[in-house]
Amino acid sequence: MGLAEKQVVAEVFSRKAGIMCGIKEVVNLLEDKDVEIYALPEGESFEPRETVVRIIGPYEQFGIYETVLLGMMAHSSAWATASRKCREAAGDKVFICFGARHVHPAVAPVMERAAVIGGANNASCILAAKMMGREPSGTIPHAAIIVAGDTVKVAKAYDEIMPPDSPRIILVDTFRDEAQEALAVADALGDKLEGVRLDTPSERGGVTPALIREVRNRLDQKGYSFVKIFVSGGLNPERIQLLSEAGADAFGVGSFISGATPIDMTMDLKMVDGKPIAKRGRIPGIIENPKLIKMK
Amino acid sequence: MGLAEKQVVAEVFSRKAGIMCGIKEVVNLLEDKDVEIYALPEGESFEPRETVVRIIGPYEQFGIYETVLLGMMAHSSAWATASRKCREAAGDKVFICFGARHVHPAVAPVMERAAVIGGANNASCILAAKMMGREPSGTIPHAAIIVAGDTVKVAKAYDEIMPPDSPRIILVDTFRDEAQEALAVADALGDKLEGVRLDTPSERGGVTPALIREVRNRLDQKGYSFVKIFVSGGLNPERIQLLSEAGADAFGVGSFISGATPIDMTMDLKMVDGKPIAKRGRIPGIIENPKLIKMK
Amino acid sequence: MGLAEKQVVAEVFSRKAGIMCGIKEVVNLLEDKDVEIYALPEGESFEPRETVVRIIGPYEQFGIYETVLLGMMAHSSAWATASRKCREAAGDKVFICFGARHVHPAVAPVMERAAVIGGANNASCILAAKMMGREPSGTIPHAAIIVAGDTVKVAKAYDEIMPPDSPRIILVDTFRDEAQEALAVADALGDKLEGVRLDTPSERGGVTPALIREVRNRLDQKGYSFVKIFVSGGLNPERIQLLSEAGADAFGVGSFISGATPIDMTMDLKMVDGKPIAKRGRIPGIIENPKLIKMK
Amino acid sequence: MGLAEKQVVAEVFSRKAGIMCGIKEVVNLLEDKDVEIYALPEGESFEPRETVVRIIGPYEQFGIYETVLLGMMAHSSAWATASRKCREAAGDKVFICFGARHVHPAVAPVMERAAVIGGANNASCILAAKMMGREPSGTIPHAAIIVAGDTVKVAKAYDEIMPPDSPRIILVDTFRDEAQEALAVADALGDKLEGVRLDTPSERGGVTPALIREVRNRLDQKGYSFVKIFVSGGLNPERIQLLSEAGADAFGVGSFISGATPIDMTMDLKMVDGKPIAKRGRIPGIIENPKLIKMK
Amino acid sequence: MGLAEKQVVAEVFSRKAGIMCGIKEVVNLLEDKDVEIYALPEGESFEPRETVVRIIGPYEQFGIYETVLLGMMAHSSAWATASRKCREAAGDKVFICFGARHVHPAVAPVMERAAVIGGANNASCILAAKMMGREPSGTIPHAAIIVAGDTVKVAKAYDEIMPPDSPRIILVDTFRDEAQEALAVADALGDKLEGVRLDTPSERGGVTPALIREVRNRLDQKGYSFVKIFVSGGLNPERIQLLSEAGADAFGVGSFISGATPIDMTMDLKMVDGKPIAKRGRIPGIIENPKLIKMK
Amino acid sequence: MGLAEKQVVAEVFSRKAGIMCGIKEVVNLLEDKDVEIYALPEGESFEPRETVVRIIGPYEQFGIYETVLLGMMAHSSAWATASRKCREAAGDKVFICFGARHVHPAVAPVMERAAVIGGANNASCILAAKMMGREPSGTIPHAAIIVAGDTVKVAKAYDEIMPPDSPRIILVDTFRDEAQEALAVADALGDKLEGVRLDTPSERGGVTPALIREVRNRLDQKGYSFVKIFVSGGLNPERIQLLSEAGADAFGVGSFISGATPIDMTMDLKMVDGKPIAKRGRIPGIIENPKLIKMK
Repeated sequence: MGLAEKQVVAEVFSRKAGIMCGIKEVVNLLEDKDVEIYALPEGESFEPRETVVRIIGPYEQFGIYETVLLGMMAHSSAWATASRKCREAAGDKVFICFGARHVHPAVAPVMERAAVIGGANNASCILAAKMMGREPSGTIPHAAIIVAGDTVKVAKAYDEIMPPDSPRIILVDTFRDEAQEALAVADALGDKLEGVRLDTPSERGGVTPALIREVRNRLDQKGYSFVKIFVSGGLNPERIQLLSEAGADAFGVGSFISGATPIDMTMDLKMVDGKPIAKRGRIPGIIENPKLIKMK
Repeated sequence: MGLAEKQVVAEVFSRKAGIMCGIKEVVNLLEDKDVEIYALPEGESFEPRETVVRIIGPYEQFGIYETVLLGMMAHSSAWATASRKCREAAGDKVFICFGARHVHPAVAPVMERAAVIGGANNASCILAAKMMGREPSGTIPHAAIIVAGDTVKVAKAYDEIMPPDSPRIILVDTFRDEAQEALAVADALGDKLEGVRLDTPSERGGVTPALIREVRNRLDQKGYSFVKIFVSGGLNPERIQLLSEAGADAFGVGSFISGATPIDMTMDLKMVDGKPIAKRGRIPGIIENPKLIKMK
Repeated sequence: MGLAEKQVVAEVFSRKAGIMCGIKEVVNLLEDKDVEIYALPEGESFEPRETVVRIIGPYEQFGIYETVLLGMMAHSSAWATASRKCREAAGDKVFICFGARHVHPAVAPVMERAAVIGGANNASCILAAKMMGREPSGTIPHAAIIVAGDTVKVAKAYDEIMPPDSPRIILVDTFRDEAQEALAVADALGDKLEGVRLDTPSERGGVTPALIREVRNRLDQKGYSFVKIFVSGGLNPERIQLLSEAGADAFGVGSFISGATPIDMTMDLKMVDGKPIAKRGRIPGIIENPKLIKMK
Repeated sequence: MGLAEKQVVAEVFSRKAGIMCGIKEVVNLLEDKDVEIYALPEGESFEPRETVVRIIGPYEQFGIYETVLLGMMAHSSAWATASRKCREAAGDKVFICFGARHVHPAVAPVMERAAVIGGANNASCILAAKMMGREPSGTIPHAAIIVAGDTVKVAKAYDEIMPPDSPRIILVDTFRDEAQEALAVADALGDKLEGVRLDTPSERGGVTPALIREVRNRLDQKGYSFVKIFVSGGLNPERIQLLSEAGADAFGVGSFISGATPIDMTMDLKMVDGKPIAKRGRIPGIIENPKLIKMK
Repeated sequence: MGLAEKQVVAEVFSRKAGIMCGIKEVVNLLEDKDVEIYALPEGESFEPRETVVRIIGPYEQFGIYETVLLGMMAHSSAWATASRKCREAAGDKVFICFGARHVHPAVAPVMERAAVIGGANNASCILAAKMMGREPSGTIPHAAIIVAGDTVKVAKAYDEIMPPDSPRIILVDTFRDEAQEALAVADALGDKLEGVRLDTPSERGGVTPALIREVRNRLDQKGYSFVKIFVSGGLNPERIQLLSEAGADAFGVGSFISGATPIDMTMDLKMVDGKPIAKRGRIPGIIENPKLIKMK
Repeated sequence: MGLAEKQVVAEVFSRKAGIMCGIKEVVNLLEDKDVEIYALPEGESFEPRETVVRIIGPYEQFGIYETVLLGMMAHSSAWATASRKCREAAGDKVFICFGARHVHPAVAPVMERAAVIGGANNASCILAAKMMGREPSGTIPHAAIIVAGDTVKVAKAYDEIMPPDSPRIILVDTFRDEAQEALAVADALGDKLEGVRLDTPSERGGVTPALIREVRNRLDQKGYSFVKIFVSGGLNPERIQLLSEAGADAFGVGSFISGATPIDMTMDLKMVDGKPIAKRGRIPGIIENPKLIKMK
């Protein structure tokens, strides 16, 4: 029917507010196509029904990619939006994305990139994350401590093996009470200890403000004021704020980011051959948005 | 420290109930490793805290894959679980996964496969879906109708182009009232019309039981009892059941499946060197589950 | 017992706030009686427990009318109170009372008068309403369009028959989508078209802000900015305000006014032979209210 | 346009369940018209969307009465429906409609007739009600007692004046505590006392089960078991049942009946010239209902 | 093990806010012991987790009294805290503790003392309470009126017997309506009547603002403005405030004070032999509080 | 006035259901008085408004004791009622009243006696309680462990000092994780260890079903199946049942019993000189109850 060659204008919007992420991938996807693209830049916020992308060109040049490009933005924007909320809660403190274990490995790097765009300082592993602002080394996992059977023993071995500039951050909830283990680890590593990590399981009440205050006080009373407290386990913006006020120094956030519901994006044809048109339920013609930037 | 060679037993469980999906990918991942794997088969249901996977072997053989294998199962099981609920609501009727546009294209095929394992008859596009039990052809999208400017015109052109055994399923909500457009399309295609699809936007009240009853009656009164009604747009199990009772014949489900929150999976070391062990908060030693099958 | 001739003071109050209506009828009722009446004027607001009417005279002169006069005010004040709330929501825009079909014809004119006292510009039919500020002509009902089978055909015929100064307001939801029908009617009548009326049934999502915005935009884009949008169907103050903000120009309100619960009025004897008295639960003696006006 | 002479079929339905009332008035209204009417009989129950009236004939014969006939049924059916619920709560006990003072006197007899059709034994005054199964005499109002200044004095005077077969039912809440006043009245009238009426104001806690049990017991202890207890004041089905279980013998119901929201009725044209038709949102053609009876 | 002689510091705190009461009894208890005590004074307010008592000395000197001293403060502080809330509600008006009949007589004087510390003007009986700022005389109980069979008769007898400076406060809810009885008692005693007491049972609606306003008005209209209104029966701070605004002059509070849940107090050892220590969940070392005063 | 010698019948009832306790003390109080007493026996259940005590005799013989005897029953019955609910939750397992530290020492023995009447096996200290069915020895308090600085050290010392037949029950939550400490104590005392007590503070998540299951499993895996698990800390019937199902063997209940709100009791005069009488709001005459037993 010769329809495919018609010049059209398509616009993308969402019914929810959020943070744009994924547009760079979309632009790459359409790099060889004969279309113009206007869009919000990565990390920009948008309101419900705001035009976030406008594509101009023959429908055949991009129509078949509709599903793919909407998917790129829907998924990434959801993660970036959740991450932004954590950033607002954490203020200037460090927060790391720990969500890789909840998503398929094919999108784990995509999610971690989105989290960083949203505001995370870094991500747990795949993206060569630099935890606490340094080289990727991370904390020793529970499993290593369990295999060794003793936290202090593992901490010492780790300290011996690692280069001097790698941070020593030790999990202190594996076998013994956190307050007790934190002091034991500090006694063992002294001023080489960068921080202790609390990932207390829900079976022991999880990480609470009271626990952080107590560990902080016990460390301070023994002269370990320089040891930072890094927390993780079921964190969300409310809990980040609460634990931050209680003295936590850094945060590992998992399912709040990784489990964010995709932000449904809709692409509508708004002009065909220069004339406003729209399906029932939409207003024909383009909807201006001064925040759009020419991407291509 | 020589810890990596120790023989360990690791077990995976979830705190929520669900449908297992992704284990086949996990087994492929560890194909060359010197481990035994016992797990629930794809599509099997599990309860909270039930052991769903057990891996036996030296920790070094699989420890570094923990994040990756948990991610495979967490994401796929969430999609399969949501799909199973739709299947239970749809009974013997056809339902298709339409969620590809909400997820990153890198995982869209993974999601569609999980949806089929959960019970979907097919998926929208990427997996060469065979809609309504036939070849992948699908319905004409809104965009094509908008470019053409008239639903009946598009329907006729589509009918001329497509091979005879491809089903003709036409969207009837683009420009005119559904009841009116459905009759116009039926008049145009006659007994070649397989079905009409209602994807009414929320601005026009969405797809409701009353709308389906009315379209069904108007079609029947004109002798088009053979025309099926295919619905989509914000469906979930409750709405599938409601619309099915009102006379809908097939269902396209999107964000209820694609937006399912990953089912968090936890891997614990339960035995080291043949001895029960566990971190604080877990019971040492393996937890038997007769539903486990040897996978490798 | 000679009680009937005793000079008494009776007072009427309500336990709810509202707008007085019906007092004129009460004064007419007691025109020939030897009593003084002090009362709030029609349309005046009152607070809970405020004295709204005071009657002074021999009990036999008005006692037997207690039920009748309370009923006049209870019913009319309820309608006027509901109407006042609509007026506050509609601001300076036109709103018409469409409630006649919910009440018995014996009180329909009473209700319509009360609605006008409360603030309605006019009422639908019985009171020779002047819709939209002009002569009573109203919109063509659904039934006429259904009998004719086509909205545009009816609109043209109506245009030919009616005197030039009667407003042409056409219902556009009978057979086709409102957005489509509104344009078709505007094309047919041109600048003689005063307005279109949306009375979308709940089976099609009812009248929503999105629908009004869309119809407004589609009309404007075709040069029909002068065509007004008149809405009806399940309106209440909240919906009037919402739809007004979305661009509606006039409102037809039915059951919110007609179904208003009567405002229970209580008449107490407060003085007998010049002495304060009251039944248990009331304070003896008159309760002053400077808003009372001598009516008779 | 010659539309008015077309033969049509119109049907009336409601979106709520209820008790039909007012159809007799509708049939009277159309007595001289050339139409057939099928309808539910007075007092019959109907479900949501059930056809309650079908009118067959030329549209011009009844179209202009649409508002009037819907109003007759909407108002009366609401009152009858509320009354039916009171009847179900009261079982075999007497209940009277006391709602006349809340509605305009023009519809008070209509309401009282509807209440009786719904199940009330009688109504308060206008319809020459026969209270408690006897002649209309009713209880002495508060006003009379207040003018006289003493309940017992009024009761005695009333007893002297009234014919022997008129029931003596005396209000006992005007000046003194009900328990005290009930005994005083019983002492004064002896076995001529038919009943006492409790209409306790909310300022004294209203009529409660505890109050009824106490008055019943105090009367019984003094040998006045034959004196019935008649209650009124804010009654609804739940309170009727509660007070009935506590020993009340008869009930006066006001605003629960008089303030019932009109049951919105809708009339649709379903056939024109023998062909099924309907506006958008309705199913064309008649909807059968075996409960319909030919009225004309 | 020689542990008992160790020098320790113990601190007491509560997880709830409240008013300290009972510390004087605690100091008496430990009078002969070789310990220092720092504590909040009687009637002082405390916040959650604030240190309210600090005891310094050998553990053997006070350890065995832990249960006893915590019980003293937990019970008394609860009563004082409830009383304080009543005082805040009552402003400058008189309120009396009437709770003795809900608690065991062994602690009734303890409770009454705590109530006075919290702010009550006096207590009902045991503590030789001086009601209304005068000698303990109280109101005549219901029982006396019932035995006599008539309120006015009892009031007169009481007036004859009592010394002139004892206040005459008469219960007016025993047999007759309060409004009626209050006037009868005022007529009988004239300007010797100090006040009337309303203790209306819940079976008659309890004491309400409307009842108080009515009794106040009826008394004033007859020239008894000097008669005070004293209320009791299910009072709490909200009701005290409400009834006070309606005109009540004095309040008798029972179960709101007597039924106050004990404020759980916890005693922790925080220093042993001069070194900070604490069990898991507490922060080692003393927690300063400038409000503490040396008691011993 | 000679009223005091009148022969009266007084009855006591409560508006709430409960378990009678304190009647024995009441009978003792009136031992020398010339009255008959009929009452429910200690531990008997009662319903709202049921007559629980009847006293017959001259009013002067018991009238002044009204407050005292109501207080005895109100307080004791509340404690017994709460205890009964714990017994129902605990089934055949041991539960001990630990509430002494929340109540004034003057009533602690009264409360503990009431708890035992309600169903507790014993009470913590004052009543020479025999915990776990043996001699009063109890668990070592937190304070002793804190002074000593080590749980195992204290446990060993205690084991050496105590006679062989005293049960060894050791608190395992003071310094180290419960799971770890329980095993350490079991290793130290072997089969002399009767049980471990978990009183985990809320700062560590409190005592939970998961914690009990874990400690039980870890003990069993090391061959300590004979060691019982005794729990305390914020228990109520729901938590007792939950923890019992998880494997707890015995329960220490504190504030649920000690903080029970007194059950308000009311004493009414129902007969004077052989004639039924009652104040307003009550039914004159005695209210029979076959459960009453002659006490005196």
